[in-house]
Amino acid sequence: MEEDILYHFSLSTKTHNLPEMFGDIKFVCVGGSANRMKAFAQFMHHELKLPGIPEDIRDICEGTDRYCMYKVGPVLSISHGMGVPSISIMLHELIKLLHHAQCRDVVLFRLGTSGGVGLAPGTVVITDKAVDYSFLPQFEQVVLGKVITRSTELDEGVASELLQCSSELQNLPTVIGNTMCTHDFYEGQGRLDGALCSFSHEEKLEYLRKAYEAGVRNIEMESTVFAAMCRVCGLKAAVVCVALLNRFDGDQITSSHDVLVEYQQRPQVLVSHFIKKRLGLVA
Amino acid sequence: MEEDILYHFSLSTKTHNLPEMFGDIKFVCVGGSANRMKAFAQFMHHELKLPGIPEDIRDICEGTDRYCMYKVGPVLSISHGMGVPSISIMLHELIKLLHHAQCRDVVLFRLGTSGGVGLAPGTVVITDKAVDYSFLPQFEQVVLGKVITRSTELDEGVASELLQCSSELQNLPTVIGNTMCTHDFYEGQGRLDGALCSFSHEEKLEYLRKAYEAGVRNIEMESTVFAAMCRVCGLKAAVVCVALLNRFDGDQITSSHDVLVEYQQRPQVLVSHFIKKRLGLVA
Repeated sequence: MEEDILYHFSLSTKTHNLPEMFGDIKFVCVGGSANRMKAFAQFMHHELKLPGIPEDIRDICEGTDRYCMYKVGPVLSISHGMGVPSISIMLHELIKLLHHAQCRDVVLFRLGTSGGVGLAPGTVVITDKAVDYSFLPQFEQVVLGKVITRSTELDEGVASELLQCSSELQNLPTVIGNTMCTHDFYEGQGRLDGALCSFSHEEKLEYLRKAYEAGVRNIEMESTVFAAMCRVCGLKAAVVCVALLNRFDGDQITSSHDVLVEYQQRPQVLVSHFIKKRLGLVA
Repeated sequence: MEEDILYHFSLSTKTHNLPEMFGDIKFVCVGGSANRMKAFAQFMHHELKLPGIPEDIRDICEGTDRYCMYKVGPVLSISHGMGVPSISIMLHELIKLLHHAQCRDVVLFRLGTSGGVGLAPGTVVITDKAVDYSFLPQFEQVVLGKVITRSTELDEGVASELLQCSSELQNLPTVIGNTMCTHDFYEGQGRLDGALCSFSHEEKLEYLRKAYEAGVRNIEMESTVFAAMCRVCGLKAAVVCVALLNRFDGDQITSSHDVLVEYQQRPQVLVSHFIKKRLGLVA
């Protein structure tokens, strides 16, 4: 087609020179919160010792409030909102952007928060398999009214490289485990404290126990479609989420603001270390 | 429970006096974009002739970037992001908020944008039934790994009152029709311009034709769960979305920025008129 409008990024092949803007991208880091992905961009700017002031980094998608996007050297930091539909719109437009910009050998990371299953709060989970509510490594996509199933396997090499990185860092308890992706935060994740709840405390614990037995170590809301779309498009990808609480102990997130902020930095510190190693900036 | 933390609003029953803050709310208006829901709050401030300056209206959820929330007299304006999971988190916490604040006789509106099916761009659709990808008025919710089905019927009285309002306004072409809710913007809506596409132009048109025959007049990404949760909780609700394009004519949103901004104001103007009539401010 003559012009490709990446509507939710407020970018287009006609109005923007995408190869010039993005051709050197090697790492794409995505996460739900706009503020957190801005903070990550500023953190990477510092870690990569780039010239200029981190506070001056500009939101490339400032023409829209759907997503925000920051470029820091070879690293792109993008927010994706909450849930599978929201991240899937972003991924379609990101993958087209990487194609138009002729990027090569890009690694994608989702950096997120999650509920832990049998883990101490603050533990980082590198996803082995992204699984659905039945603990199966698959994602169901509706195409023209028909359901098709896509595999959600992630790149094993990147996952083990990340685990190696975690062992080189202080104060970064990390495990590899399966990540369950749900389509809501309350009933789908077995929370008792939503506006609607039709099950008992014991039924909730039984579901979480089954999840744990199936290798699930955390629960979030984007990993299956992220894994599936990256895989279909031949992109290496990893999911790195910190557990904010242990769901066997409760449903509400009661840790103090400062503790939660420190937890949320852990995936950022881990992925930053990975990127610096790949770039030869640390041994 | 002793304390209820509405985590994604950054509000809690312990730190905020919810009855005092929200007890007089009678209308809740929700929409995807944070900027648009801020603009709507400022517009309502003007329309209700409230004292003070519209620009001073404060984001009640400023402690988080997940959602934004503005209160303007008896009207609450909240953003919900994109897609069913994102709006469902907001709705759980909103419904708990209305309960804690002891609100009575509240009407909820979703004001959104959508793709039109056989409609001229700029047409406003008041949703009759919110339907899924099979054109059925139902929403599938996973609860502890099991799929349950909920009805998505909306309030007929509010819908016909809205249609009457539209006839009293200039430049507001409006229809009542079914609204199809999908879980993505590209493959699920039959767009040919996503990063992935496995079907032909003709297959796309066939699916849209079937949708039209089933009464579908627009496609968006939140209406089924909005309708289902409001219905289960006994809340009157309506969905009012403007069509930004006619999907029989294309997939990309190519109208100019100014035209799109004017289209996006149409649901706001309609719902504002409804609210002013209910409050006895206009005949």
